[in-house]
Amino acid sequence: MSTETSTDRGVPLPPMKFNLWGTVDEAKPLGESTRKMLSSLMGVVDDGAVPAKDVPVDRLHLTAPRLPEEDLAAFRRIVGDSHVTTDDAQRAPRSRGKSSLDLLEWRSGAEGSEITAPDAVLAPATDDEVLQILQHCTTRDIAVVPFGGGTSVVGGLTPYTADAGHTFRGVVSLDLVRFDEVTDVDPVSGLATLGAGLSGPAAELALAAHGLQIGHYPQSFPYATIGGYAVTRSSGQDSAGYGRFDDMVRELTLVTPGGVLQAGQAAPASAAGPDLRELVMGSEGAFGVVTRVRLRVHPVPETKRYEAFTFPDFATGAAALRAVVQTGTGPTVIRLSDEIESSINLSSGDKAGESTAPPGCLCITVFEGTAEHTAARHRETRDLILSLGGKSRGEAPARAWEQGRFNAPVLRDSLLDAGALCETLETATDWANVPRLKKAVGQALAESLNGSGTMALIMCHISHVYPEGCSLYFTVVAAQQGDPVAQWRR
Amino acid sequence: MSTETSTDRGVPLPPMKFNLWGTVDEAKPLGESTRKMLSSLMGVVDDGAVPAKDVPVDRLHLTAPRLPEEDLAAFRRIVGDSHVTTDDAQRAPRSRGKSSLDLLEWRSGAEGSEITAPDAVLAPATDDEVLQILQHCTTRDIAVVPFGGGTSVVGGLTPYTADAGHTFRGVVSLDLVRFDEVTDVDPVSGLATLGAGLSGPAAELALAAHGLQIGHYPQSFPYATIGGYAVTRSSGQDSAGYGRFDDMVRELTLVTPGGVLQAGQAAPASAAGPDLRELVMGSEGAFGVVTRVRLRVHPVPETKRYEAFTFPDFATGAAALRAVVQTGTGPTVIRLSDEIESSINLSSGDKAGESTAPPGCLCITVFEGTAEHTAARHRETRDLILSLGGKSRGEAPARAWEQGRFNAPVLRDSLLDAGALCETLETATDWANVPRLKKAVGQALAESLNGSGTMALIMCHISHVYPEGCSLYFTVVAAQQGDPVAQWRR
Repeated sequence: MSTETSTDRGVPLPPMKFNLWGTVDEAKPLGESTRKMLSSLMGVVDDGAVPAKDVPVDRLHLTAPRLPEEDLAAFRRIVGDSHVTTDDAQRAPRSRGKSSLDLLEWRSGAEGSEITAPDAVLAPATDDEVLQILQHCTTRDIAVVPFGGGTSVVGGLTPYTADAGHTFRGVVSLDLVRFDEVTDVDPVSGLATLGAGLSGPAAELALAAHGLQIGHYPQSFPYATIGGYAVTRSSGQDSAGYGRFDDMVRELTLVTPGGVLQAGQAAPASAAGPDLRELVMGSEGAFGVVTRVRLRVHPVPETKRYEAFTFPDFATGAAALRAVVQTGTGPTVIRLSDEIESSINLSSGDKAGESTAPPGCLCITVFEGTAEHTAARHRETRDLILSLGGKSRGEAPARAWEQGRFNAPVLRDSLLDAGALCETLETATDWANVPRLKKAVGQALAESLNGSGTMALIMCHISHVYPEGCSLYFTVVAAQQGDPVAQWRR
Repeated sequence: MSTETSTDRGVPLPPMKFNLWGTVDEAKPLGESTRKMLSSLMGVVDDGAVPAKDVPVDRLHLTAPRLPEEDLAAFRRIVGDSHVTTDDAQRAPRSRGKSSLDLLEWRSGAEGSEITAPDAVLAPATDDEVLQILQHCTTRDIAVVPFGGGTSVVGGLTPYTADAGHTFRGVVSLDLVRFDEVTDVDPVSGLATLGAGLSGPAAELALAAHGLQIGHYPQSFPYATIGGYAVTRSSGQDSAGYGRFDDMVRELTLVTPGGVLQAGQAAPASAAGPDLRELVMGSEGAFGVVTRVRLRVHPVPETKRYEAFTFPDFATGAAALRAVVQTGTGPTVIRLSDEIESSINLSSGDKAGESTAPPGCLCITVFEGTAEHTAARHRETRDLILSLGGKSRGEAPARAWEQGRFNAPVLRDSLLDAGALCETLETATDWANVPRLKKAVGQALAESLNGSGTMALIMCHISHVYPEGCSLYFTVVAAQQGDPVAQWRR
């Protein structure tokens, strides 16, 4: 397999602005009516601060690069001069991921506090270069943080130098952007090998040339990368149809300080022994650097069908989703929002707070595949949903959901600019435990905001279903109070 | 969770006779016409030896028990007097699995050679008893072989005492028969916890009381156990509908010399870290003793539909199976036999060799679930198969396959008695590689029998399909020549 890459761009800047989800162009202020609602319902006060999109990197104080010339020279010998940098403009976007806490820290950094940053950014292009970097860093006691799309919301990018009582001499960000090839495409078996640095859209574009698709759409899709999907066990919005990302992974190339490991299987299934893929997936880069992933792919679907439903309440809707997945009627997407989220989703864009949407819980279904397959799956799913208390709301809400499905993280920056606090959290549980867990998390969130004098908007949806259970995804919006980082930590 | 068990039967004899697949009652001689065919086509000669079912255990020479009273006394203190034995009648069936080589070794043992046997058989009933046994054996340098149904065909039960240059003082067979409880049944989420010692039929019987089913039917189903399914990554005949056994496992209880480990997840899916289940599954007992498995289960299906098809050739049939699984039309069972296997399957029982069956490759489909679901899946699958060159052969061949599906291993004993050699092997590959691999394995099998002066019957089928590939299962029948163990090893 070739490890040569098609790019030689030095160390390119990641597309997202360091302190935003997305680009400066994507950022936009909240609409008037949303701001009014936030102000009247939650007492959100706009403090008039500069929007994050307008904060330049030189207004922030990054920790100074600490590595001596000796190390930098070694890195330059390994990857070439243009693929090593210590510039602040390059270190900043690789200093944090995109959790709400990360974004709040950038915002407080604009007021003078120091942001820890990696000491250098390296962009190797081959497994051997990655191996040499890891070996140099092991010998010289330097921590390494692999970087893909920079979308981590679990602190995966924070350049800690202290670990279990040991303090490293420094930390480098190892950017996988140059691992951007699509190779060994097998359209008959439905397999392709993708470079770990390919973003979701770049991977889909390259596969589309072969009439193929991955069909993995996490909310981070516009920026997240193939390697990141694997090491975080990413789950996408089409998980009902195509499975979670870890279901699709056939083999991973993992570079460790001790050598290059192919974790996976030469066959679609095996009865033999432990499966090392499962150690690499979910490892968040802890065991090595994933440079390439061999993946199950499928033909670009011929047709798509959409239908939205409402249920009188969340429990009725959840029971219907359970019946759909346990029967196996086969939607590609199936989701259910609770009453509050539904009323916001069903009301259009800037009219949140003035909803005239029908009451109840909104369920979105999408079906993909050949015309016959899509029709058969749609019919069976629809009949089951209608028999279990669902009412059709037609195509429009499902199409609207699809169109806006990657927008929520951008909206978060607008909410933060406007003085609101916004966070999401996701968990999963067995069907029998769904009512108890939904109530318990909702109460815990409400209690954590108790006494803060702000009303919180707490919403929940199911976006991944499994035969034995489902995910529960919570969104909280409240007013920022005092130090928002401290408020978040509570 | 309770670890008390409902049985207290001392050390019961496993149901299968030590030197046979199955019981003495199941064993029966070949029909006249089959014997004629074997004789005329392959030159198979019946040497008039005593059938294996009639060989008593005392005609065989097992290695004598080697453990001193000190160890036996310790085991009795841990599990109770009646759960420790050194009887030959108990050691014999735990000395070998049921591979063709195992069965041939028993047959040559009847001629005087010595069979290595475990030095004692222990039947603990709780995790703590297993832990104490493992700790005693670790301290005293005794090897431990976990025993479930005794169906291993990969040497998993052979009581080797030498490993990597080290010779153990002895070896014990740890029988899991007393781990036979079904607990924590959750019909809403479709989950149940099953004792590792439950056989397939015992597990299904216990779950049926709750209206539930596992739906895992490997050919070893009548005897194999839940723990064995897990540590061998077993795949069943309904894998198209319910997945492989490793897909169904939610959590395993693993007793190791260092303590008891729960390997698995509290939720149906998780983005967090390495998944230890995948280390335990396929481990063949190497890392510890699996005592309990929490498993995905589903309602006993309302209806079943059957249809058989034939294709003009194997390549056309394989392309249709690929389309079925890649489209996801949803059969519970789908299988394809090559021309030779089809002609034997389509001809009835004792008429092998005189087939008047229609030519081509036989495909079996079965559909399960609610009435609507089964009808929808049948219709979509059937339409696709017919559009890709399949011809319907009605229900009968599919029902006949289902009825006889656990019989092949019993037939093997009859073939061995009659002087034939019979072996099966299974592999899996990507769809694009199916033609090449089928040809290469067929040629290698034919060459291995070259110059032996016997014609071999080499058959192949696909019994597990995956989006990116399928299994290939080969069966070889030839005449025994000279020393059959040596012949097998060639």
